[in-house]
Amino acid sequence: MSIAEESLKKHYEWRGKLETVPRAKVTDTASLSLAYTPGVAEACLQIQKKPELSFELTRRWNTVAVITDGTAVLGLGDIGPEAGMPVMEGKAVLFKTFGDVDAIPLCIKSKDTDEIIRTAELLSGSFGGINLEDISAPRCFEIEKRLKEKLNIPVFHDDQHGTAIVVGAALKNALKLINKNIGDVRAVINGAGSAGIAIAEFLLGLGIGDLCVCDRKGVLQKDTAGNEAKAAVAAKTNKANVKGTLADAMKGADVFIGVSAPNVVSEAMVESMAKNPIVFTMSNPVPEILPEKALHAGAAVVGTGSSQYKNQINNVLAFPGIFRGALDARANDITLDMMRAACDAIADSVPKNKLCAEYVIPYAFDENVHKSVAAAVYKAAKK
Amino acid sequence: MSIAEESLKKHYEWRGKLETVPRAKVTDTASLSLAYTPGVAEACLQIQKKPELSFELTRRWNTVAVITDGTAVLGLGDIGPEAGMPVMEGKAVLFKTFGDVDAIPLCIKSKDTDEIIRTAELLSGSFGGINLEDISAPRCFEIEKRLKEKLNIPVFHDDQHGTAIVVGAALKNALKLINKNIGDVRAVINGAGSAGIAIAEFLLGLGIGDLCVCDRKGVLQKDTAGNEAKAAVAAKTNKANVKGTLADAMKGADVFIGVSAPNVVSEAMVESMAKNPIVFTMSNPVPEILPEKALHAGAAVVGTGSSQYKNQINNVLAFPGIFRGALDARANDITLDMMRAACDAIADSVPKNKLCAEYVIPYAFDENVHKSVAAAVYKAAKK
Repeated sequence: MSIAEESLKKHYEWRGKLETVPRAKVTDTASLSLAYTPGVAEACLQIQKKPELSFELTRRWNTVAVITDGTAVLGLGDIGPEAGMPVMEGKAVLFKTFGDVDAIPLCIKSKDTDEIIRTAELLSGSFGGINLEDISAPRCFEIEKRLKEKLNIPVFHDDQHGTAIVVGAALKNALKLINKNIGDVRAVINGAGSAGIAIAEFLLGLGIGDLCVCDRKGVLQKDTAGNEAKAAVAAKTNKANVKGTLADAMKGADVFIGVSAPNVVSEAMVESMAKNPIVFTMSNPVPEILPEKALHAGAAVVGTGSSQYKNQINNVLAFPGIFRGALDARANDITLDMMRAACDAIADSVPKNKLCAEYVIPYAFDENVHKSVAAAVYKAAKK
Repeated sequence: MSIAEESLKKHYEWRGKLETVPRAKVTDTASLSLAYTPGVAEACLQIQKKPELSFELTRRWNTVAVITDGTAVLGLGDIGPEAGMPVMEGKAVLFKTFGDVDAIPLCIKSKDTDEIIRTAELLSGSFGGINLEDISAPRCFEIEKRLKEKLNIPVFHDDQHGTAIVVGAALKNALKLINKNIGDVRAVINGAGSAGIAIAEFLLGLGIGDLCVCDRKGVLQKDTAGNEAKAAVAAKTNKANVKGTLADAMKGADVFIGVSAPNVVSEAMVESMAKNPIVFTMSNPVPEILPEKALHAGAAVVGTGSSQYKNQINNVLAFPGIFRGALDARANDITLDMMRAACDAIADSVPKNKLCAEYVIPYAFDENVHKSVAAAVYKAAKK
């Protein structure tokens, strides 16, 4: 049976990957009076007097809304809110499994930016944080930006920042192996959606020497980029003034980062890169170039988005610990400092004596990585 | 320690009365691939092709949103969405405990009718049903009505219909004891909020001989009632053309139903009622008249909203089984027939040989009542 077939079968068995379970047990009249009327009134009154007590007296301190409009689900595109739910439920399972965070998936039946923002805002009093998920670019940028401004709870668009943080961690470790400083390398990012643009921003923040971003039409140029977000990233990248196709951009580059489409990179393109190139080919399930081909073409370190290969660059390494740390610190935002702290914690979770070309990024099932990310994010939030 | 103090202490211990627990266990790369990428894509694609599969492949079939704006929470009034959450969490605990329904509490930070409706509509694709809760009258009537028109999942305002159904069940059994037919009795309802008006409508549907509804100003009159909902119920009730105060209305009445305020009924008022009066004094935590006083004044059957007395008229008897039945039938509405079926099932859950003045309504912890309500509602929905 293929993974798709087996997964579908399991989905019919699960009938939902989440369950809501009472922590308060109601077994008799006395316990009912405590969890519900008349006793519950006291908790309500306390919160009315001091709203921040909603983080003590309800589940809010540990609860994150996973919000999507279903417009950019996995590689499947705009499949709608109902069809996006299996992914959101899966995400919530990972939140609990790796971060002990209670996540509630909510799929909004609107593609209107203002309506999505308003809906999240109206619900924000019930949650300790909001994880935006699989909302198409460039709408996702505005939605995240405006929600961060409006709300005093953490808002995080995982497709952007989760991916960027994990790529950053893998890159840091890969550079150690090939003895290059981040300030001396040039990267090419293929894919100018939410992930590609966020990776570019994050690597700029880490002080990368140079980078350019490509979309289907080639290297983004500030005058001709298709939308504001692309134009903005084009304006602050590409010192080398590279023009043309992805193949043109990759010539002499030190790092390739693919968040785009299957099979768009050839062995010849990898061969045209600088010595000991780093190739993160993360299109899923089929990468931009198969890892064995990239290695054959001379790549020093290869990472993918898939668990079938070594070095899975998977944002499950980031979001559970990030929200765990942010919730524990009762942060009102997830700042760049917190993201950088998460990135370092992930990179440092690979023991120095085990770091090698096939192990630049920790495994998702390494328990320590999530705890370490949470602790680092907590510390950064408290600063 | 008082119940209030003990409950507050428990709320600090619980830190949320609900938890989100994975049904899909993710313990290794293989199980991750089934619950999340890449396997999950297949479930998404199936739902995209056939949206009703969201009731098979996600938790939707068993999941109800408990939605409030925090404007009419318990007897506490407009305390806001955050402060309403302990009640909503409690409600969700009862949904699971008594109906095995996964309920998600959502408190909306808006009092605008249109915004509340739109928010519920935008979220409706993630749920199998919507339970409206503690939204103040008369806004609650419009919100429920418009949502029922817009959505093809069950929408139920528990403060209205849950209360009406349970009062109806208690009244049916009480009337058996005093050998009166419902068609021959006159009832006085004190309280013209959501519960009072819904009880009036429901009892009219059960064929009650006559009834009138009072608010703080006395018996509602169609020309002078304070809002449309009050005027509408005034127009179709009060055949006896009673005018004046609550005391005036109660003279000669067979049934008193209080959903109003503490201590507004005196022994003299009960003494003025017809022979063998039925007194449901449900203001909480302090009733309209203490049960011992009502009995002393000659009441044949007394019920309250509190677990401290006999005959607790508690809508936990209704809503878990109603949603269980509606979800299992995949009903797209909760109809009057389904509500009447629930009412009969509750009344019939008191065994005939045990029916007496102190036992006209089943206990919430009688397991059979919830199953019996669910089965009856399921059957009515399938008709």
